[in-house]
Amino acid sequence: MNLHIIKIGGNVIDNSENLHRFLKDFAALDGYKILVHGGGKVATQLATTLGIESKLVDGRRITDIETLRVVTMVYAGLINKNIVAALQAVNCNAIGLTGADGNFILAKKRPVKTIDYGFVGDIDDNSINPGNLKNLLDAGFVPVFSALTHDGAGQLLNTNADTIASALAVALAKTYQTTLIYCFEKKGVLQDIDDEDSLIREIDPERYEELKEKQIINGGMLPKLDNAFTAIACGVKAVIIGKADELGLLKQNHSFGTRLSTRI
Amino acid sequence: MNLHIIKIGGNVIDNSENLHRFLKDFAALDGYKILVHGGGKVATQLATTLGIESKLVDGRRITDIETLRVVTMVYAGLINKNIVAALQAVNCNAIGLTGADGNFILAKKRPVKTIDYGFVGDIDDNSINPGNLKNLLDAGFVPVFSALTHDGAGQLLNTNADTIASALAVALAKTYQTTLIYCFEKKGVLQDIDDEDSLIREIDPERYEELKEKQIINGGMLPKLDNAFTAIACGVKAVIIGKADELGLLKQNHSFGTRLSTRI
Repeated sequence: MNLHIIKIGGNVIDNSENLHRFLKDFAALDGYKILVHGGGKVATQLATTLGIESKLVDGRRITDIETLRVVTMVYAGLINKNIVAALQAVNCNAIGLTGADGNFILAKKRPVKTIDYGFVGDIDDNSINPGNLKNLLDAGFVPVFSALTHDGAGQLLNTNADTIASALAVALAKTYQTTLIYCFEKKGVLQDIDDEDSLIREIDPERYEELKEKQIINGGMLPKLDNAFTAIACGVKAVIIGKADELGLLKQNHSFGTRLSTRI
Repeated sequence: MNLHIIKIGGNVIDNSENLHRFLKDFAALDGYKILVHGGGKVATQLATTLGIESKLVDGRRITDIETLRVVTMVYAGLINKNIVAALQAVNCNAIGLTGADGNFILAKKRPVKTIDYGFVGDIDDNSINPGNLKNLLDAGFVPVFSALTHDGAGQLLNTNADTIASALAVALAKTYQTTLIYCFEKKGVLQDIDDEDSLIREIDPERYEELKEKQIINGGMLPKLDNAFTAIACGVKAVIIGKADELGLLKQNHSFGTRLSTRI
């Protein structure tokens, strides 16, 4: 059976019209599917209103206890449950989750080295319980994960949504023909970052090495693609990187954006 | 199979020590089980901090769009997910839900008569999808419901937790030997409201009529018990009204507090 795991970020969540169009396309996808969402601007806005300073180190949020309360309210409450209600309205039997629910994603609090990230969870090869998730999928539910996990001892932990999506894909790749899809603000991997028409449609590991050598892929795209090829090496069938509002093309063309796989 | 549906309110949720003791006792219960929780003081506190006025009419919260955002964050996010993480820590495979998740509880926005309650949902005989819930219970999960439902068209609705608990009990009574338990601040129904030692251990419909005639039961307890006997008339095996910190007695004595049933 096919399984699509799709991650959306703030650029989709923060715009109600974009979000609803995306959710309609998501609902229309055949086969098993899982949605993973980040937080968007709402968490930062709420923290500001509550007088909680948002501290970022290298783009990563330091999650003190007050910030954890905010992200738990915004990610698992406000955003997650509104997505679930919107999916139910288009006949998609969504069920909104964190990694604590069903013990689906067990994380470890990030150890303090030079920086104390606070209540941030790191996940590893043993974090995901695929049996529990398979039960939920087989029962006909469509899991919608917010970017929170737990430590198994009662502590919720803030966890990167990209990482959750790829860990889910790898853990379920043994059971399903799994495609991992990252929706972001561009059409996909571009030859020229300023030209949306320069989309590279397919990349295999060989082509990836070439593109890196020629410095066509660099900066923030490198860790994204490195993670993608790691997921593929672990059994994920393909990784697609593209724009949320083009998800509808997946049903027609079996792909959209940039498709990464072992072989073109 | 036995199913226990237990509702806890603010008096349990607002005290971390009480809550954790209760959750340990809940986790230890055999058979199928469902937890339903209200909101406690946290929603009112957050609303106040955000400058949103809490409007109550006859003790019922008017839920405008801003208040709905607050209760969605607090009930479905903060309280629900911390309860789930705490249950997982005592090996109870909890899964935190609203009525939107899995389309478990479909409500209707309360019609405006003299008062506009805003985004408040009323539930009826067709609100609960027992098949969907049975799938979840059979898959080994322990549902934890916060006091939110949806209208099926994308709108979340604030819904009374007592009502959710009794509607779940009635809907599932055909499938399971269902006991509905309301935890509140007293030991149960008391002969003398100021004397915790005057607990009435069992009430059947006949005794209930006597107690009402003698005005031993009156005031706020009347609608609670009327609802309880309605649930029993609809097939719920028994309703227990008691103190959360005595739930542990249920395992030993098969009851605690006041037990309502068709026959003593």
